[in-house]
Amino acid sequence: MLTYARSTTLAAVEGLTMPGLDHLHDAESNSIGALLAHIAAVERSYQILTFDERRLSDDENELMSAALKLGANGRRSLRGHPLDHYLEHLTAVRGVTLATLAARDDDWLERSVSPAPKINAHWAWFHVAEDEINHRGQIRWLRARLPKTGE
Amino acid sequence: MLTYARSTTLAAVEGLTMPGLDHLHDAESNSIGALLAHIAAVERSYQILTFDERRLSDDENELMSAALKLGANGRRSLRGHPLDHYLEHLTAVRGVTLATLAARDDDWLERSVSPAPKINAHWAWFHVAEDEINHRGQIRWLRARLPKTGE
Repeated sequence: MLTYARSTTLAAVEGLTMPGLDHLHDAESNSIGALLAHIAAVERSYQILTFDERRLSDDENELMSAALKLGANGRRSLRGHPLDHYLEHLTAVRGVTLATLAARDDDWLERSVSPAPKINAHWAWFHVAEDEINHRGQIRWLRARLPKTGE
Repeated sequence: MLTYARSTTLAAVEGLTMPGLDHLHDAESNSIGALLAHIAAVERSYQILTFDERRLSDDENELMSAALKLGANGRRSLRGHPLDHYLEHLTAVRGVTLATLAARDDDWLERSVSPAPKINAHWAWFHVAEDEINHRGQIRWLRARLPKTGE
């Protein structure tokens, strides 16, 4: 599911240039680039939660805050990068996810996540895919409305 | 996953009035009401594909065409209904899905879908949830931008 969701995200952004990635549809919108940074940051935060079994440190929170929370900070700081910048980060984070999941078993997947005992790792990783798909829906919508110079 | 995805869709549309459900963000947009009709139609079409193991009939295709394909036909015909209209249809379709899935086993889930042998039922039902989540992302985006009278 993670792999399939990612393939559709990559298809949704294929060929986008920096103006397209940075474009803000309106004053409250997140750019497509910011949404890609968000997808990678959410995945990284769930690695920390489920693999390291801890909450994000203050430093990590500060480092990832713009990408995790989006909004005004995201509009200010998540821009000015070509598509490869986002794709390389997504790929690097995903590599850690797949390698780490491959070393765990189904029992681990069903176990409660110790820093967040209401969820198990299975739900956490479904949620990572779910959040990516949610934002892919927005990326498709936003891309269809880019100024022609953004494509 | 289907149940969780649905709970988030219901939360995303809770309390919407008819003007909000019918609102078109721009000339190419689907209304939130049309997206709800689409979610139900996609689920119904995958029931036919995986439970009845056949393609949609011409009559079914015609009946569901606006909801499945959205766009201009959807903008014309999928409007003028209160939220309950969409929710009742979603609930009725989902009832059939859950009852029918409950009567199948995991072997069935992994079997190839005879009218679409490249996929199995497991993927088909993941895809139903995935498509709903994609459009829920759009619904959230659109709802945040409704004219104040639409809320």
